[in-house]
Amino acid sequence: MKFKHLAISAVALGVASAVFAQVKPEDEIRYRQSVMNVVGRAFGPMIGMAQGKLPYNKEVVAKNTQVIETLSGLHWNAFGPGTEKGAPTKADLKIWSEPAKFKESAEKSQQLTAKLAQTVKGGDEKAIKAAIGDLGKACKGCHDDYRLKEARS
Amino acid sequence: MKFKHLAISAVALGVASAVFAQVKPEDEIRYRQSVMNVVGRAFGPMIGMAQGKLPYNKEVVAKNTQVIETLSGLHWNAFGPGTEKGAPTKADLKIWSEPAKFKESAEKSQQLTAKLAQTVKGGDEKAIKAAIGDLGKACKGCHDDYRLKEARS
Repeated sequence: MKFKHLAISAVALGVASAVFAQVKPEDEIRYRQSVMNVVGRAFGPMIGMAQGKLPYNKEVVAKNTQVIETLSGLHWNAFGPGTEKGAPTKADLKIWSEPAKFKESAEKSQQLTAKLAQTVKGGDEKAIKAAIGDLGKACKGCHDDYRLKEARS
Repeated sequence: MKFKHLAISAVALGVASAVFAQVKPEDEIRYRQSVMNVVGRAFGPMIGMAQGKLPYNKEVVAKNTQVIETLSGLHWNAFGPGTEKGAPTKADLKIWSEPAKFKESAEKSQQLTAKLAQTVKGGDEKAIKAAIGDLGKACKGCHDDYRLKEARS
């Protein structure tokens, strides 16, 4: 039961799929990459708006924030034991050797996502841009710490 | 402006990212694959529940339906002109040669997703399982029509 712990983590974070099946490491790697791809595509234009490089569009911000909020947690939960390798991945092995620090990054990111979602509901453009910037810094910080420049197999 | 039409479609469907950038075909292919991967992981256990192969879990159904509903539309919108090739893909070229029929499948799927989300809110397990089954058939129908068995490059 290599993935028992993974399943427990999934339950703890309220995530569903891993509860029901022993997910293959290569599928879990592809899954977390997929989640981050979708989140990145939603967040990219928001960063551009926060930096003044794109015109602010509140409908886009609302819709994309919903995507980011809904997927928040799914990728964090997909770095369970046994998923260190199995397919090309940029995930640094530090994720598994310093799980407490990684978890701290995950929690910070999720808190900032929740704060962004709340701020978006408030409708204050300046505050929303600041919240986007804060989450962007958290994303970058975790990527700097845990994402390798080149994929390893 | 090869992707001008893509951008317009994105606006029409309320999707954001393609509006702001000329997305490379390979990135668009990866993106739609990512969305479908995430949707599939959310929907898989729900299909198992509807078929009686997994115990029914209303929290999982609610959470996963939210993922599916939020991502509904994102992948349909990522088959724009110019994204027929550029990376290995199982997308059948019929998608681009019979766009009206493909659009019909997309709309049916989105309607059934909305119906599922509504039914989940109602809380009637039997109705929810039926709605899961209906959406599952629509997914399968479109895959049968438009997803190749092997990736082409």
